[in-house]
Amino acid sequence: MAGGRPFALRSELPRDTVRRMAFRTDTASIEGPGAAYERLARSIARRIESGELEPGSKLPSVRSLAAWNAVNPSTVVAAYRVLEREGLVEPRAGSGMYVAPEPGAATADEEFGARPGSSPGRAGPTGTDLDAPEATPVDFATASPSPERFPTVAFKDLLAEVLDRDGGYAFDYQESAGWPPLREAVADWLAETQGFRPDPRDVIIVSGAQQGVDLCARALLAPGDRALVEDPAYRGGAAAFHSRGAAVEALELDPEGLDPDALARVAERRPFRLVSCIPRFQNPTTLSWNAERKRALLEFAAARDVFVLEDDHVSDLAYEDAPGPSLKALDRDDRVVYVKSFSKILMPGLRLAALVAPPRLRAALARAKRDADVGTGGLAQRALELYLRRGLDRVHLASLRSEYGKLYRAALDALAELAGSGVRVAPPGGGLSLWVELPPGAPASALAARAKASGVLVSPERSFRRPSPTAPDRHLRLSFAAVDGAALERGLRILATLLPARRSP
Amino acid sequence: MAGGRPFALRSELPRDTVRRMAFRTDTASIEGPGAAYERLARSIARRIESGELEPGSKLPSVRSLAAWNAVNPSTVVAAYRVLEREGLVEPRAGSGMYVAPEPGAATADEEFGARPGSSPGRAGPTGTDLDAPEATPVDFATASPSPERFPTVAFKDLLAEVLDRDGGYAFDYQESAGWPPLREAVADWLAETQGFRPDPRDVIIVSGAQQGVDLCARALLAPGDRALVEDPAYRGGAAAFHSRGAAVEALELDPEGLDPDALARVAERRPFRLVSCIPRFQNPTTLSWNAERKRALLEFAAARDVFVLEDDHVSDLAYEDAPGPSLKALDRDDRVVYVKSFSKILMPGLRLAALVAPPRLRAALARAKRDADVGTGGLAQRALELYLRRGLDRVHLASLRSEYGKLYRAALDALAELAGSGVRVAPPGGGLSLWVELPPGAPASALAARAKASGVLVSPERSFRRPSPTAPDRHLRLSFAAVDGAALERGLRILATLLPARRSP
Repeated sequence: MAGGRPFALRSELPRDTVRRMAFRTDTASIEGPGAAYERLARSIARRIESGELEPGSKLPSVRSLAAWNAVNPSTVVAAYRVLEREGLVEPRAGSGMYVAPEPGAATADEEFGARPGSSPGRAGPTGTDLDAPEATPVDFATASPSPERFPTVAFKDLLAEVLDRDGGYAFDYQESAGWPPLREAVADWLAETQGFRPDPRDVIIVSGAQQGVDLCARALLAPGDRALVEDPAYRGGAAAFHSRGAAVEALELDPEGLDPDALARVAERRPFRLVSCIPRFQNPTTLSWNAERKRALLEFAAARDVFVLEDDHVSDLAYEDAPGPSLKALDRDDRVVYVKSFSKILMPGLRLAALVAPPRLRAALARAKRDADVGTGGLAQRALELYLRRGLDRVHLASLRSEYGKLYRAALDALAELAGSGVRVAPPGGGLSLWVELPPGAPASALAARAKASGVLVSPERSFRRPSPTAPDRHLRLSFAAVDGAALERGLRILATLLPARRSP
Repeated sequence: MAGGRPFALRSELPRDTVRRMAFRTDTASIEGPGAAYERLARSIARRIESGELEPGSKLPSVRSLAAWNAVNPSTVVAAYRVLEREGLVEPRAGSGMYVAPEPGAATADEEFGARPGSSPGRAGPTGTDLDAPEATPVDFATASPSPERFPTVAFKDLLAEVLDRDGGYAFDYQESAGWPPLREAVADWLAETQGFRPDPRDVIIVSGAQQGVDLCARALLAPGDRALVEDPAYRGGAAAFHSRGAAVEALELDPEGLDPDALARVAERRPFRLVSCIPRFQNPTTLSWNAERKRALLEFAAARDVFVLEDDHVSDLAYEDAPGPSLKALDRDDRVVYVKSFSKILMPGLRLAALVAPPRLRAALARAKRDADVGTGGLAQRALELYLRRGLDRVHLASLRSEYGKLYRAALDALAELAGSGVRVAPPGGGLSLWVELPPGAPASALAARAKASGVLVSPERSFRRPSPTAPDRHLRLSFAAVDGAALERGLRILATLLPARRSP
């Protein structure tokens, strides 16, 4: 069908083909269990999530969808309402219902896409890019260190050392849960850096933090289960939960963390199984939870039989006050699945993160890893083990802290000068980003678009919210991970010119 | 709960705790959609698949489970019947219902576990192992080349070359679908070696074939969908489908492939969405489908709106007749998701495989990859690109074919001498294993256990069947991937002594 034409061209296909492709297997789904509107919503949600119905595409009218499926129009209305609440579809005034624009994807592209300064070709940045820095956009959107800051040389030597030592065994299958010596090294490293030492058997080596989140979803969530995420948040977590058929509820984050009363209210409405959060230097708000909120979440989890997924991506990068202990260090009831990314503090391309499982979930998480990809490659694991054992990470982190600390202070100073324009920023004390509040009348998405046209990339608040025309649009996430001092200054100067005119004092 | 004690000790916990742990969240699940027995079955299946209910553990009696859940005993009986049909539980005469022993895991351990000759420690094989070969078991169970056969030296040089060329960019995020130059190199390589050249945009680089299978499950299967697998088969595929909440049907493989009439009969009973198969040198039967069966499957798929997952692990290793074209090369209707593993023909620890998507599934599969782990690491992808572009794989494959061809013929010759004992083997023409039929009265699982005690590891047929006391038990899979000529001879000599006494001529 469509003779090998790319999917994106579907809207050019005859109307009847579109209908058949989009809804042809509905029959089976619609015959499944549950109320008719739920079955219909599930069937449409599945097609949205598989990409079969494209982001931004128009959905059939209530009348025609009702006719195709031989249901009452009110069933379709109810189904669309469910999908709208899930953020999967959105109404457009006067023109019907649309699939929401790329759920979760805008952010993934910003976080993980090709860097503006890098060539998509085979050899990294081209000479042109390096020779003409003025032509390169200032990239405040990428929240990951630039490749020049990676410990590449150290790893090159370690890879060679591992291959000289282990030969082909470094390229053989590894245990699904990870190479045992690395699991031990990580346990020791967590004891030194995070204040808790897990049983190495509870440490599972995963291919990056996103896989840690996804395995947690596989082990804990069944279709129809509910998961709760912070709002705003990086939307990759919600995407993993959605892909399990789980319902995802987003709870507004306040400056201290998630409000225990709000949590309780959500749980009253319907129990949920998992709360996902970043309690230190949250992405994108940069907030760190206070001690009371951390305690309250753990008590809530124990009382309600809920698990907590703690994503720790940059707690190591504190320039002022440390952000306090991790939830895992406080976890007395084995409620917390802790995921430590090595992407920000070392290099994302290692594709290595460590997951610390509550003992009772160890077997289920290891099985999820095996079913997902058998196991993570051994070579990088062996090199990381040497890297941690020799304390090379401490040298590297000290240098990152010093370098980023300067950028952090420079950015705060420059933003302080914009206070007269109504720009506000709460110093997070660490991390790789600032969460900049704009003055009223300066919508962040519009400003981000104008900034892009002026060669400055920033992430507007809506990249981290469920797609909705009424989502808050007040903040920009401004990351200094991938810039140097000169670019920082230049980019902030450009941003300042785009703000509404200064109010007279 | 259980204060951090390992999960395996649960049977030592007080009875009431066991019940609470195993069934405490049932309430929510049981309140879901569907008939009561289906909901109960789903709820138990989920706990089995998450590992919460352990393989081999006893399930509650019908009476007590009915009482706990306030349902009629006949509901529990019906739920247990569903689970039995799925191979998740099994009755034991006179003692009730049990969770089936490790679904899919016995084989995964054999295929991917630590090799008997390798140390679990940090430096590969220990001196002791190398110095005392007579003490090392003969490993006919591992179907993957031994590390001594890996192109380690070539890759060590390529990794260094990539890092000199690309620096930190080799450690940066890559596109989710893979590094574009590798996708192009794979497309060219497939044109040369497999007779079809996909659009490079349809090539997705995945972290090993299991991830390819899993992404296919994510993109295509929703809870309640049906998938069909070959029987017998490596059970990792079924595990990935089960993890999506799909129902998995296993269809007996005959010497020509899957029988189209049997396929049609299964589809009559209830439509399915995906057929997973290895049409060339199947694992474990070593069978290759004939041309007519390949055509019939593709026609069936087009007529019934079914997708085909083609797993190609060793088609490159032919010693006699080539096994014919891949299904993908014959796929006119964009029905085939083709997964090419580089684990057997290069090295499993690279964790690289190439998936070729039908154009209409490209977006859904790339999205599944992004949700699963953002993307595969760039360093190995860049090294593989150079490896393929320079034709180093052809040199390596020629050497593997020569070496394995000798082992293949030696194994067939030695087994021919056992024909008098009733041992039969059909020469597959290639691959890394033989599928050995034993004489009646010599159950394969018992022979495998005796062989293990005598220092010879083989995989009995039941490792590749749904756990069931009535599963066929007539064959051994005997892999020569990880042995040398001397070990092969020694191992077969030992196996011969374990066969029932020769019938007199």
